[in-house]
Amino acid sequence: MAYRKTEKVQEALADKRQRILSAARRLVSDGGFQEAPVTAVAGLAGVATGTVYRHFASKAALFAEMIGETSQRELEVVEAIALSDGPASLRLADAVRTFARRALRRRRLAYALVAEPVDAETDATRLRYRRALARVFETVVEQGMRSGEFPRQNAAASAACLVGTCIEGLVGPLSPDGLGPDGNGDELVDDLVAFCLRAVGAPAERAATHAPRART
Amino acid sequence: MAYRKTEKVQEALADKRQRILSAARRLVSDGGFQEAPVTAVAGLAGVATGTVYRHFASKAALFAEMIGETSQRELEVVEAIALSDGPASLRLADAVRTFARRALRRRRLAYALVAEPVDAETDATRLRYRRALARVFETVVEQGMRSGEFPRQNAAASAACLVGTCIEGLVGPLSPDGLGPDGNGDELVDDLVAFCLRAVGAPAERAATHAPRART
Repeated sequence: MAYRKTEKVQEALADKRQRILSAARRLVSDGGFQEAPVTAVAGLAGVATGTVYRHFASKAALFAEMIGETSQRELEVVEAIALSDGPASLRLADAVRTFARRALRRRRLAYALVAEPVDAETDATRLRYRRALARVFETVVEQGMRSGEFPRQNAAASAACLVGTCIEGLVGPLSPDGLGPDGNGDELVDDLVAFCLRAVGAPAERAATHAPRART
Repeated sequence: MAYRKTEKVQEALADKRQRILSAARRLVSDGGFQEAPVTAVAGLAGVATGTVYRHFASKAALFAEMIGETSQRELEVVEAIALSDGPASLRLADAVRTFARRALRRRRLAYALVAEPVDAETDATRLRYRRALARVFETVVEQGMRSGEFPRQNAAASAACLVGTCIEGLVGPLSPDGLGPDGNGDELVDDLVAFCLRAVGAPAERAATHAPRART
């Protein structure tokens, strides 16, 4: 029985879909993928379990979309900073700092997004996100080379390395008990920024300035 | 009917187990995890499919052990170089170079080891390997700081970043078609080494010596 969905029905469906995604994100933020079985997601979203499967082909598909959506938002924030105005080294520093701070603020979710072992389909989403993030860094590195701030280097290779640095540098601290209950990670963020600036060959004084600055 | 296994029986069992692991490694080297269903592993090892499951609880457990065994060997090679004698920056450069060259020589297997989307159990093995590799780098960075080669830095953070650099810097090139049919990756290895040396703040002339070898 095919019929054209009215606008209202469409909106209700989209709303339900979004509620399911938000519920998944919330549960993963609290306890990782293992604490987010489909029944719990459905419960929190206020829909029947079967409804989840009407919107998503599988639990893996749901997680993959949740990760994709959340990562996209993080990517846009980093991109806006990285590709704004000013010296490339400052933009790179601010982009890395923001990426790390945001991850450390929502530590459990960030850990799930980048590192927690999960099924292959969800994992594939991560690879796509890393590539997109690498393209942003590549642009900044190229700009820095053109302006003479950074020495000649393979911008694509450096960009991939920067992605690896940002993510792997955070995996330990993001993991449960990584920073301890009182650790806010400010020093770690400074370490990460300094590492990245040295790595692309930013002027030493800039790398040094960025290391110990108490930024908010 | 419990009985003590004789030495010969034990050896035969161990031999079979090793043949299964080798077969899995060989198939994954050729076509990744998807080309290594248990039936194919059994066939190549010359055992019945049921025998595979007598030795390994699941396909995931088999892959996890294969990855663990292979990664352990890579780790030992890198560790031997990284913790040998000489200036820390040279040892770090040689360790990174060796790690990257070995990965690029067995590209398909290396991609499977570090990046190919796979089940959660296998993925967890990767996290353990990365931590072990980070401990090796941490020691070198600490030694470099003590000898005055590297500036003061958070050695643990830098080590995690180096692991991320080495792995993420290779994921693209390792992926199918990453380097193209003729690419041997020599230039990429130089880029990676230069990035790592700059990142830990190795003396500029040392980073430079390692960077631009026969580059255009």
